[in-house]
Amino acid sequence: MQSFEINKSDLLKLKTALEGDDAELQRVLQEYHASEIAILFERLSPEEHERIINILPSDVGSEVISEMDEENHPEQILFNLHPEKRSEIIEELDYDDATDIISQLEEHEQEQVLEHIDQEDATNIRALLNYEEDTAGGLMNTDVIKLNVKLNKVVALEEVIRQSEEMEEFYTIYAVNDADVLQGIVSLKDIIKSRSNVLVSDILKADYVYVKADVDQEEVARLISQYNLTSIPVVDDNLRLLGRITVDDIIDVMEEESTEDILKISGVSEDEELSGGWQDAVKSRLPWLVINLGTAFLAASVIRHFAGLEAKLPIIAAYMTIIAGMGGNAATQALAVTVRRISLSDLTDQQAYNTVLKEFLVGMLNGASNGVIVFIVALLYDGNPMLGLVLFLAMTGNLIVAGLTGATIPLLLKRLGIDPAVASSIIITTFTDCIGFLLPLWLASALLL
Amino acid sequence: MQSFEINKSDLLKLKTALEGDDAELQRVLQEYHASEIAILFERLSPEEHERIINILPSDVGSEVISEMDEENHPEQILFNLHPEKRSEIIEELDYDDATDIISQLEEHEQEQVLEHIDQEDATNIRALLNYEEDTAGGLMNTDVIKLNVKLNKVVALEEVIRQSEEMEEFYTIYAVNDADVLQGIVSLKDIIKSRSNVLVSDILKADYVYVKADVDQEEVARLISQYNLTSIPVVDDNLRLLGRITVDDIIDVMEEESTEDILKISGVSEDEELSGGWQDAVKSRLPWLVINLGTAFLAASVIRHFAGLEAKLPIIAAYMTIIAGMGGNAATQALAVTVRRISLSDLTDQQAYNTVLKEFLVGMLNGASNGVIVFIVALLYDGNPMLGLVLFLAMTGNLIVAGLTGATIPLLLKRLGIDPAVASSIIITTFTDCIGFLLPLWLASALLL
Repeated sequence: MQSFEINKSDLLKLKTALEGDDAELQRVLQEYHASEIAILFERLSPEEHERIINILPSDVGSEVISEMDEENHPEQILFNLHPEKRSEIIEELDYDDATDIISQLEEHEQEQVLEHIDQEDATNIRALLNYEEDTAGGLMNTDVIKLNVKLNKVVALEEVIRQSEEMEEFYTIYAVNDADVLQGIVSLKDIIKSRSNVLVSDILKADYVYVKADVDQEEVARLISQYNLTSIPVVDDNLRLLGRITVDDIIDVMEEESTEDILKISGVSEDEELSGGWQDAVKSRLPWLVINLGTAFLAASVIRHFAGLEAKLPIIAAYMTIIAGMGGNAATQALAVTVRRISLSDLTDQQAYNTVLKEFLVGMLNGASNGVIVFIVALLYDGNPMLGLVLFLAMTGNLIVAGLTGATIPLLLKRLGIDPAVASSIIITTFTDCIGFLLPLWLASALLL
Repeated sequence: MQSFEINKSDLLKLKTALEGDDAELQRVLQEYHASEIAILFERLSPEEHERIINILPSDVGSEVISEMDEENHPEQILFNLHPEKRSEIIEELDYDDATDIISQLEEHEQEQVLEHIDQEDATNIRALLNYEEDTAGGLMNTDVIKLNVKLNKVVALEEVIRQSEEMEEFYTIYAVNDADVLQGIVSLKDIIKSRSNVLVSDILKADYVYVKADVDQEEVARLISQYNLTSIPVVDDNLRLLGRITVDDIIDVMEEESTEDILKISGVSEDEELSGGWQDAVKSRLPWLVINLGTAFLAASVIRHFAGLEAKLPIIAAYMTIIAGMGGNAATQALAVTVRRISLSDLTDQQAYNTVLKEFLVGMLNGASNGVIVFIVALLYDGNPMLGLVLFLAMTGNLIVAGLTGATIPLLLKRLGIDPAVASSIIITTFTDCIGFLLPLWLASALLL
């Protein structure tokens, strides 16, 4: 199988069916998986979305809505549905998915939706709406299979079957005491294999990893990845079981966090929506550019300081930009490797020291290699071996600075408890610009005049 | 709970225990989860690793080995163990994990290891060693629960219990025919709920997503994420069931792919190991720097072309570097947003067009904002309003070029079937350097002289 991509023939077929009657449309829709319909939705209008959701069986419709891209506004489709169809769809949704969608509506619209659905569903969704979106509470699903530790094998198995009736798939079974406090986890296999008088408390595994509801989603992702979990229970301050987070929900979190790393390292605020509008993008990027403009004036003041030299040696201006630019690129390389390394695992002091040492060496070697090329050009093209020497030294020096700052600054920020990715290339290149201008100008003044 | 980080007191406790007798060491080790011991291993010597693995029960030891960072060489620990202990450890490992570790050994060492373990394990591992590491075959685990479609409920349930005996956790149950060809998936819940004369073929779900063994791991990750799967069956060309890949294995793949994106966008070859040595880093980064040096000469030739101007207006050199540098940063911002957007989902033509239009607008607005600041500086500091106008126009123009190239080039590469992340900031900034030098120099020649 291949992952689904929109192609013209699928789209044409669906568009044609949308012009026909309901029976024809239903027939065409049956050929697609719900997540495929959700992808095709990107190319359809809100009216077409509504018609299709209305015609689909509620279980498929709910899957389409939960798989839709946020930018196509699933919450608006849900809101515009007939209240009866709407409650059918919400009934089919997992509580965490329903909450994510409903949370996008205005508060009065949320109330309007919650008033007309099954009251147990409404209570659960209302509870979830209280958690911050990017915490364990905001990620968790309250649908869990839980067994009282006092149950025997026979009743426990019946309970599992009863509770799992409404779930698409189930992961871990949790054991709780009378106060709903988590006592451990139980595997279905162990229940099935037990003799009938065995109690849940006899077969539970008390050594498990859990998370409190207010913990940040990044930390949840790290726990799940570190302990290789398929799901993690979420508890309140008294260790009462609130819900569970499954590894597939964490995949989205990890994609989000990686996106934030890439954006921050490139001088884009982490809040910028990839598919947001231009207003959003200007707001997110302009501050970084203005900061950089300030630092660029600083670097340019180095050039002003050597204004006399340039009059005597105009060629230096062209070479100076090459050395500064190469420093910026080498620093960006060192920065990317270091930031990514830090975000995947914590470095020990020894590892941090080795990283800085390595980047020093790499800067020196890459600097000398490029320095030789610039030397040769200055020799052959400008016929000036002393200029070549100046440029060789400046290139090597600036690429050493590039390696050192690209590695040291994110490591320092991490030690200070600041996100290392904000050591964006915009910040780092200030150093390589200043040194990149200073070195050739100063060396030329000293050696050539 | 919190994710585990190495702290001095844990390390000191373990180091002290390592100096004591086995009983004491065993007692201290019991306080830690296997993945925590794997993390503590980063700070211990190979000899200490071996002593600990030898002292741990084989099930815990195997977990520690499978969780260890590759750079601490779990394969060497495994290789150095007494053959008997080694086969106990391998027996406890999942086949896919065992294969990953053993594949790091030299071929003759692999043979030495495989000869002395259980022959069924050896056959399975040998089969897995044949698949490329980054394909579905290289990721899959051959331990699956499979039922013949002809089995009735009672026998099927017994089979599930028997087959799951050796598994830590199980996910999906697969239904196959006599030739081992995949027919569908079955849920344990449905088996339990069925009456005793129901056959596997009656309750299987024939609509499922599968993947062939030679498919690239990125595609596997996309399928699992797109269809929200917890696991995916792997089949051969005749659709015979070979194994399964679970979502937790995909987490590592996703981390790898995000790392590649960040590195490539920063001009680092995707093969560079984050924790590799300096030789590795020079090999991976030098080619990009040399390419950039070539393009930098191109940009510098623009400056050479206007050498006469600079003699008359030396101040232009300092401003020109500011405008080129700002263009590079704005281009990096547009590039990061566009590359990340493309790697998370395919853009339709309409979305691609909107992206370019948005980046044009953002470039114009950010350019004009920074242009006003530069205008004011030229006016107040250099007392030259015409120079201010030149710089305003050059800044605006270059940031428009930055937005357009940052968005268009990765979109074009994607259409051409090339990885958009190779449109690294190193490549993109060639444009903004050339235009960033050309615009102020040309406008100044035209308007100021």
